[in-house]
Amino acid sequence: MTIRIGIMGYGNLGRGIETAIANNKDMKLVAVFTRRNPNSIQLLTPTIPVVSASTVLEWKDKIDVLVLAGGSATDLPFQTPTYAEHFNVIDTFDTHKNIPMHLTTVDKIAKENHHLAIISIGWDPGVFSLFRLLGNVFLPKGNDYTFWGKGVSQGHSDAIRRIPGVKDAKQYTCPIQKALESVRNGKSPVLTTREKHTRECFVVLKENADAAQIEKQIKNMPNYFDEYETTVHFISQEEFNKNHQGLAHGGFVFRTGTTGINKQHHQIMELQLTLDSNPEFTAHVAIAYARALMKLNKEGVTGCKTIFDIAPSYLSPVSKEELIKDLL
Amino acid sequence: MTIRIGIMGYGNLGRGIETAIANNKDMKLVAVFTRRNPNSIQLLTPTIPVVSASTVLEWKDKIDVLVLAGGSATDLPFQTPTYAEHFNVIDTFDTHKNIPMHLTTVDKIAKENHHLAIISIGWDPGVFSLFRLLGNVFLPKGNDYTFWGKGVSQGHSDAIRRIPGVKDAKQYTCPIQKALESVRNGKSPVLTTREKHTRECFVVLKENADAAQIEKQIKNMPNYFDEYETTVHFISQEEFNKNHQGLAHGGFVFRTGTTGINKQHHQIMELQLTLDSNPEFTAHVAIAYARALMKLNKEGVTGCKTIFDIAPSYLSPVSKEELIKDLL
Repeated sequence: MTIRIGIMGYGNLGRGIETAIANNKDMKLVAVFTRRNPNSIQLLTPTIPVVSASTVLEWKDKIDVLVLAGGSATDLPFQTPTYAEHFNVIDTFDTHKNIPMHLTTVDKIAKENHHLAIISIGWDPGVFSLFRLLGNVFLPKGNDYTFWGKGVSQGHSDAIRRIPGVKDAKQYTCPIQKALESVRNGKSPVLTTREKHTRECFVVLKENADAAQIEKQIKNMPNYFDEYETTVHFISQEEFNKNHQGLAHGGFVFRTGTTGINKQHHQIMELQLTLDSNPEFTAHVAIAYARALMKLNKEGVTGCKTIFDIAPSYLSPVSKEELIKDLL
Repeated sequence: MTIRIGIMGYGNLGRGIETAIANNKDMKLVAVFTRRNPNSIQLLTPTIPVVSASTVLEWKDKIDVLVLAGGSATDLPFQTPTYAEHFNVIDTFDTHKNIPMHLTTVDKIAKENHHLAIISIGWDPGVFSLFRLLGNVFLPKGNDYTFWGKGVSQGHSDAIRRIPGVKDAKQYTCPIQKALESVRNGKSPVLTTREKHTRECFVVLKENADAAQIEKQIKNMPNYFDEYETTVHFISQEEFNKNHQGLAHGGFVFRTGTTGINKQHHQIMELQLTLDSNPEFTAHVAIAYARALMKLNKEGVTGCKTIFDIAPSYLSPVSKEELIKDLL
């Protein structure tokens, strides 16, 4: 079985999906859809058609799963319900507080049209969420810790760029090693926001901008920076272009708990991701869930699901017998 | 819903199940079954009845899931199919090469009797297997590495105890730090058996035993020790009793892979378990799958399943809405 994939949107994630499909033999990229002028876009795999997003319905019978590679702020709240009417869809919706509403909306439309949608797929939400669930069920008496980074926070970088006088900016979220080691050593510490992460900012100024004033504005920005130890580095555009184009990220999820009739035994579960490319890893996770989606939809499953609803064997292209022999 | 659990066998794992049930509010221990004289057994929770294994069928209507806490060598190949005729069962069968045969046997009997069995649950096989599957699907171009320890290998300890002149013995499997760091740093090394683990043995001799001869016998034992760097320490029974009664274990699973159109990005997934009590953690995993078993059986699922077949949300006692809100 070959799974025919369409990609809606061609930013970092869209390009990641394109490369992920090339890494999975049972997948085929059918077309990339864009709101930009299709002629302005150069794919990594140039034999695949790039077409206008407005013509996507013409591709209904040629695509098994449409992967939505838009942003969570303005694209996906609209795109996922819209396209779930016509396609099986995967998205990476990550605005945490709006997931329940998003799920309800998508579920209704997908069910009415006999489609299946799997939302909020990636590494957080996604693989980290799955690990948090496993930690909570295997160690019901315990504590959760999630550390992110070192990696770029897109939202925080955007927030800095909106400050007048700022030409460009990148913000790195860094886990605090001391806190991380304390958790890893089973000390179950109570950690404030400030004790878990620092924020490191690299900023290119416009001409005649007031560096001291901008640094103050960044450090005092409510919600984004005021609760953190924040460092601001002013650098040249040249250095910015040379050293701050990477998309590396990663993080740690811990579940630490106690077992035993007197809670005398400490048990620690730790998941660590070290990613050279955040969007490419996210894309590979999304593509594995596209495979699960296809299998489940063939069994008659419709509506909207999350990573919690999918049995692991559905993610793999190999038979259950091989999985048991090679991986169990 | 309260899930009524029976435990078959009361060794380390049986005791672990007993303590795990106490940690899960939706579970109730109904009875412990033993082949020994029930009067000789003192439970950690003394209000629960201990009864003869031969009377287990009288408890058919009082037990939702029977957790089989016997050994994989001689108990489970017989017990799991036998009890799957009368009960929903969970086992921790870990003789890897015999899992397919065990699954086929149990599947047939369970299906014929409308029961559900979940086999080979624990941390390896179990949680480590699940992580290996996720690693393989998220990073299809990559390498798997599993390191065990530091922890006691029961099989290797038994093998030493069978040598004439040995009074008692414990064998610790230790991951080699250099190999582990090389994997963690993304070097994707090719590692021989000798390069991944060492074996450390603590041996109490009988009177007049020949230490040099026994050390030689251990180090040259085929399959068990001859492929490893092995260290043998001869110690007193007093030191053995004081320092080598622990059941700590743990280990590491890595999936390292490349993504990107030119495989230019390295991505590393790492799972680490650090367990003060191996049987208690195994028991907590088994109990979570007992919960999933109950829910699936109520939906009409029968036969024999593994960890790969179970969607994560079935493992949790909380609603899907709460899972999404708190953990996604």
